[in-house]
Amino acid sequence: MVCREEAVVRLPSHNAKFCAHHFDQFFLRQVDKAIRKFKMLSEGAKVVVAVSGGKDSLAVADALSRLGFEVVGFHIDLGIAQDEFSRLSLEASRQFFAKIDRPLAVYSVLEKFGKPITEVVQGFKRPCAVCGLTKRHIMNEFASRQDAQAIATGHHLDDLTGALLANVLRWDVRYLQKTLPVLPAKDGFAKKIKPLALVAEEEVRTYVRLRGIQYVSLACPFSKDARFKRLRALLDQLESESPGTKRSFYETFLRVAHVFSAQENGRQMVLCRSCGLPAASDPCAFCRLWGKTLEREPQ
Amino acid sequence: MVCREEAVVRLPSHNAKFCAHHFDQFFLRQVDKAIRKFKMLSEGAKVVVAVSGGKDSLAVADALSRLGFEVVGFHIDLGIAQDEFSRLSLEASRQFFAKIDRPLAVYSVLEKFGKPITEVVQGFKRPCAVCGLTKRHIMNEFASRQDAQAIATGHHLDDLTGALLANVLRWDVRYLQKTLPVLPAKDGFAKKIKPLALVAEEEVRTYVRLRGIQYVSLACPFSKDARFKRLRALLDQLESESPGTKRSFYETFLRVAHVFSAQENGRQMVLCRSCGLPAASDPCAFCRLWGKTLEREPQ
Repeated sequence: MVCREEAVVRLPSHNAKFCAHHFDQFFLRQVDKAIRKFKMLSEGAKVVVAVSGGKDSLAVADALSRLGFEVVGFHIDLGIAQDEFSRLSLEASRQFFAKIDRPLAVYSVLEKFGKPITEVVQGFKRPCAVCGLTKRHIMNEFASRQDAQAIATGHHLDDLTGALLANVLRWDVRYLQKTLPVLPAKDGFAKKIKPLALVAEEEVRTYVRLRGIQYVSLACPFSKDARFKRLRALLDQLESESPGTKRSFYETFLRVAHVFSAQENGRQMVLCRSCGLPAASDPCAFCRLWGKTLEREPQ
Repeated sequence: MVCREEAVVRLPSHNAKFCAHHFDQFFLRQVDKAIRKFKMLSEGAKVVVAVSGGKDSLAVADALSRLGFEVVGFHIDLGIAQDEFSRLSLEASRQFFAKIDRPLAVYSVLEKFGKPITEVVQGFKRPCAVCGLTKRHIMNEFASRQDAQAIATGHHLDDLTGALLANVLRWDVRYLQKTLPVLPAKDGFAKKIKPLALVAEEEVRTYVRLRGIQYVSLACPFSKDARFKRLRALLDQLESESPGTKRSFYETFLRVAHVFSAQENGRQMVLCRSCGLPAASDPCAFCRLWGKTLEREPQ
C-alpha cells in the first residue's frame, strides 16, 4: 500500500523516504530489531536509561518506554556551571521524564563531593576520559542497587562508527570491543546495551523532532576532540558518497568482532574497599580521583 | 657524533633530520630492518623485483641491490598507449636496470595476446582490480620459473595504511591480511615481500631524488579511485597533526593481525588446465579474462 502523506524524511542509506507517521514506525522498528537481534532485553524488562538530557538519551528512553519496557531514568548532575550546561541538562531530563511519567533518579556530584567535575578533571590531559570514568562508576553503582536487566545508553551508529575508526587507528582491541551493541554483565557490573546502535544520528534527530521532545543541544563546553570530529567528518563524507558505508562498517565489524574476544587479557579484579565495587585496583580509580578514600582513612 | 653537513631532510614521524648522506644510510637501515624483522630474505638471496618504472619499485630494486641481494627485475608492459604510459614505464625500467647492471625480464601483453590491457578491462566496473589480477598472474608465472626466494614489490607505508583503512571500512579479513609485509609462499605461489613496508612515501621520494634515479611520475591514466585518495588524504592529515600515526596504525595492526589468520577460509585450489598454475577455478580467472582457453579448445 502506498502512503498518501507527503514524505518528510529521506534516508539514502535505506534508499527510502517516509511521511512523519511511517518514519516514527520505522524508527521504533529499527530499535526493536536491534533489541531482538542482539538479545538486549526480554519483553517488558526493567531497564535503567543513562540520561544526559541530550537528544540521544531522551530518544532511547522514549523508544524503550513506547516499546513496553519498564524505563528508570538516571541522570548524573556533573555541576558544570559554564553555559549553565548542567542546570539545563537536568531540567530537560526532569521535564521529559515527567512527561512520559517514568521515575528519574538524579545523582549530583556537587552534593555528594562538594565539587563539580570541572574541578576534578583540572590538570588532566584528557578531561573526557576522566569524566567518562566518573560517569561509568556512578552508573554502575546505581545499577547494582536496581533490579534492572541492563543499562541502556543513547549511543547511535555515528557514535559507534566514529569510535570504531578512532580505535582501529591504534588497533586497540579492548576499546574496539566497547563499541559492540551489548556488553555482557561482568565482574559484578550490569549488562550495557545500545538500542540505537543501528540508527544514524540524523534519524535520532528526526525522531525527537517529530516526537516534540525538548532536549539540550549544547555540547559539553569541555569536549573539543578535533581528531575525533575529523574522523566523524570523514565518515560523513564517505557516507554521502556511498550511502550505507557507516552501517556496513559497523555491521561487518560485528561479524568479525568475536576474533578479538579471545585477545582480551583476563584482568584480575578486586573489591575496592572504599566504594565496595569490583575494580582493577583498591582503592579504585574513581575513589582515588574523587578523594573518597580520605574520608575513611584514620586521621 | 654530530654531523656537520646541512640537514636536507626532516622526518617528523621519527623526530629527526638528516644530511643527504645520513638520510641515505637511514633509509637503507629501515629497509634492512624490515627484511630482518619480518624474515623476508636470507643474506644475499635471489629476489624477483616487480618493476613498474615508478619511484617505489625502482627504489626497492636499488635498495635490495645495495644491500647485497641478487636482484632480478621483472617488468610487465601492459600496452597502455595513453600518455605513452607503457612506453615510458618500460624505458625508465630498462635504463635503471642497465645502470645497476642487473637483468630485467620484460613481459609484453601486446606481444603475448595481441591486445593491450585497456581492451581487456573495458566494460569492467573496477579496471584496477582486473589489471591487478592480470599482473599478479603473470608475476606468479614468471616467479615459478625462477629460483628466487621471493617476489618484492614497492608497497610503502602510505600504500599499506591506505589499503588497511579501505579494507577495515568493510572488515574484509582476507584483504586486511594482504597488507602484511610478508605473504608466505602458498598453493605453489612464490612468497611476496614488501621491503618498504616501514618507510613513508615521502621518504621513498627523497631517497630516489638523492640517488638520482630517473622514474616515471605519471600515474596510470586509468586509476581514479576518488575514495581511496580521500582515505589517503585523511591519513596524511592525521599524520601531520600527530606524526607517527600511520606507522602506529600499521605496526599495531601487525600485532593483532594473527587473530585474522584463523578466519581465512581454506579455499580449495585446483590446477588451471590452460596455464598450469594453481587457481580457485579451472580455467582460472586470468585465462578466462584473456581468452587463453579459446586457443586450446577444439575448433
